[in-house]
Amino acid sequence: VSADLATRAVELFALLRERRPRVHCITNSVVQELTANVLLAAGAIPSMTTSPEEIGFFVSGADALLVNLGTFDRDRRDALDIALEVARDDGIPWVLDPVFIERSEPRAELARGLAQKEPRVVRANAAEFGALLQTEPTAEALDRFALDNITVAACTGPIDLVTSGAKRARIDNGHAFMGQVTGIGCAETALLCAFVAVEDDEFIAAAAALLVMGVAGEVAAERAGGPGSFAVALIDTIASLDPDAIRKRAKVT
Amino acid sequence: VSADLATRAVELFALLRERRPRVHCITNSVVQELTANVLLAAGAIPSMTTSPEEIGFFVSGADALLVNLGTFDRDRRDALDIALEVARDDGIPWVLDPVFIERSEPRAELARGLAQKEPRVVRANAAEFGALLQTEPTAEALDRFALDNITVAACTGPIDLVTSGAKRARIDNGHAFMGQVTGIGCAETALLCAFVAVEDDEFIAAAAALLVMGVAGEVAAERAGGPGSFAVALIDTIASLDPDAIRKRAKVT
Amino acid sequence: VSADLATRAVELFALLRERRPRVHCITNSVVQELTANVLLAAGAIPSMTTSPEEIGFFVSGADALLVNLGTFDRDRRDALDIALEVARDDGIPWVLDPVFIERSEPRAELARGLAQKEPRVVRANAAEFGALLQTEPTAEALDRFALDNITVAACTGPIDLVTSGAKRARIDNGHAFMGQVTGIGCAETALLCAFVAVEDDEFIAAAAALLVMGVAGEVAAERAGGPGSFAVALIDTIASLDPDAIRKRAKVT
Repeated sequence: VSADLATRAVELFALLRERRPRVHCITNSVVQELTANVLLAAGAIPSMTTSPEEIGFFVSGADALLVNLGTFDRDRRDALDIALEVARDDGIPWVLDPVFIERSEPRAELARGLAQKEPRVVRANAAEFGALLQTEPTAEALDRFALDNITVAACTGPIDLVTSGAKRARIDNGHAFMGQVTGIGCAETALLCAFVAVEDDEFIAAAAALLVMGVAGEVAAERAGGPGSFAVALIDTIASLDPDAIRKRAKVT
Repeated sequence: VSADLATRAVELFALLRERRPRVHCITNSVVQELTANVLLAAGAIPSMTTSPEEIGFFVSGADALLVNLGTFDRDRRDALDIALEVARDDGIPWVLDPVFIERSEPRAELARGLAQKEPRVVRANAAEFGALLQTEPTAEALDRFALDNITVAACTGPIDLVTSGAKRARIDNGHAFMGQVTGIGCAETALLCAFVAVEDDEFIAAAAALLVMGVAGEVAAERAGGPGSFAVALIDTIASLDPDAIRKRAKVT
Repeated sequence: VSADLATRAVELFALLRERRPRVHCITNSVVQELTANVLLAAGAIPSMTTSPEEIGFFVSGADALLVNLGTFDRDRRDALDIALEVARDDGIPWVLDPVFIERSEPRAELARGLAQKEPRVVRANAAEFGALLQTEPTAEALDRFALDNITVAACTGPIDLVTSGAKRARIDNGHAFMGQVTGIGCAETALLCAFVAVEDDEFIAAAAALLVMGVAGEVAAERAGGPGSFAVALIDTIASLDPDAIRKRAKVT
C-alpha cells in the first residue's frame, strides 16, 4: 500500500506543478499568508477574497474551492453561500475544513449542514470530527460519515486516517512541530484541495496530499531549530520536495 | 529583585507550559499569525475569532481574553461588547492593548472607557499611554492610573516599567530588533495574557511575562541577521527557552 | 541611466530611513504582515486599519497612502472613499495596486475609476494592467495610460517598466523567488509608496523603489534555500541593504 500510494502521490504532485490549479480559499484571517505560501510552493495559484461582491467571479475562475470555518465573520458567511452556489453550478470541487467547531456550537451546526452539501473531502482533527459526528470519531464512525455524506473523511493527527467508507488509508508521517505552528492543518487542507483539483478520485487525492505534507514536515523538521524555523523550512521543502523522499519515507497502511 | 522576579518568571513559564491555558484574542489582522505562534511556542492555545455570533462561545471556554485595538473594524467592535460581558460573567481575566491610540482620537476614547472596566493589565508603549492618560506617562502618572483603575500598567520600551501603584518593576531586557518587526508588542501582550491566565497576581504575571519576552528577544537577536530572521528565531527561542537564560540575563530593578 | 538611477535610489533610500515616513495601507488581509515588515525594514512606519470610523485620522496623520484592492470587503470599500477624500484635502500622495483585477470585473471597474483620481503611481503586473487598460499593456499603451491619467505606470515582471509617458525606465533586477511568495508585489508597492512620501517626482520614486526591491531580491535569493527562507532573507536584506549593492547590481535602461 505504501509503495502504491507513494507512487500516486509523486505523480499527482508532479501533475499539480504542471497544471498549476487555481485554488480559491475562504479561510480564516490568521492563516491566509501561510496557506497562500504553501499553495504557491506546491505550484498552485491561491486567491483569498471573502467579499460577497467578488467571490462569485473568483470561484467561477478557480479549479477548486476551500471552505475553512475559522474566524467566520459576516463577509465570510455571506460569501460562503455564493461560493457554494457557483461551485455547484460550475462543477468546481470543494473541500471543507471545520476548524475549532468543538469550541462553538453554532459553528458546529454550520459544519454539519455543509457536510451534507457534498464536499469532496472533509479534513479535520479528532476533536473537530467528534463535534461534527457528535460521537467518538472511530474509524467505523468516520467510514459511516463518509458513506452517508458521499464524501471522504481525512482525520489528521499523529497518525492520519483517510476513508471513503469503502477504502481506508493510514498515514504515519509528519512531525510534532506541525502542531506547534498556527495554520499548518489549515494549509494542509488547502494543499489537499489543490490535489483534488487535479485528481477526480478524492480518496487518492486526499491520501496523497496528506502523505506529501507529512513527508515535507519530516524533512523540514530535520532542518529546523523550533517551530519558527520549521514553518520557514516547510515552505522551502514543499517547493523542492524530492520524489525519492516521498517514496522512501512513506508509511502508509 | 532581579533574582526573585526571575525565579517567579521561571516558575510561571513552567506552569504555563503545563496548564496550556486557552487565550482568546481579539487582535488586529496584521499580527494574528505572529501572536498565535508566540502563544503556541509558549505552550498556550490561541483562538482568534472576532465574529459576534461566535465569540461568546470562545471566550466562555477560554482562560483569558486579550483585547487589542488594532484594525478595529465593525465585527471587532460588536464582538468586544459580547466578549467583555461573557468575561465578566464567567470571571475570565482580560488584558488591554491600546494599539496606536495616539493616532486616532475615537480609538483613544474607546481605550479610556475600556481601562475603567477592570482589565487585569494594560500593556502599551509610552506614546499610547500618553494618549490613554492624556498626560506624560511618568512613573507617578502610571502609578496613579493603576490605582485609579484597579489595574496594572505595563509600559514597554527600551526599559519596561510595570506598576500596580503599590509596587514597581523596571525590566531592562530586550533588543532593538523588537521594535523593527510588526506585532512584537502585540504578541508580548498576548504572552502576558497567558501569564495572567495562570497567575492571579497581575503585577507578578505582567512583570514575569515582559521579562521572559525580553530575555527571549536577547537570545533570538544573537542568532538573527536582521528583523526577518529575528522574528523566526524569537518563536524558536520561546519554544525552548532555557530557565537559566532567564535567571542569568534578568535585569530587573 | 543605470548609474544615475542607482545614485538617486541610494539617496532616496537614505532619505527614507532618515525621515521615517508614515505609510497608511489599505491592503489585503493576506499580505498585511509582510507589507508592514517590509516598510519597517526600510525605515517607514506602517499603519493598516481599514475601519471607516478611524481611517480618516490615520490617513490625515500619514505621509502617503497605499490603496491595494486585494480582499476588498465592505469595510475596505467604505474606508476607501473616506481615505481618498482626506488624502485629497490634505495633499497626501497615494498609490494604487489593482491586485488580481483580471479575475473580477467589478474590481477591474473599481480600479479604472480609481486610476482617474490621480494616484501618483499605479503598480501592477502585466495581467492586471491588461485588465485596467482593456488592451495589451505594451510600452506605448502604458505611456498613454500614464499621460491620460497624469500618473506613472509601473508594470512589474521579469523586467519592470516604469513610465510617466514622457520618460521610461526598464529595470532588469529581481529573482524568480519573488513570484513564489505571496504578497511580494503588494509589499513592493508599499515600499514604492514610502519612496513617493519622500520624493515629489513620482517617476524617480517609482523607479528607485523597484530598483531597491529588485536588488534586495537578488541579494536575498543568494542566501535562501527556497521561497520560505527567501521571504525571511528579504526582510533582513532590506533592513541592511548596502548602497554599493544597489550601485553595482543596477540594470536599468
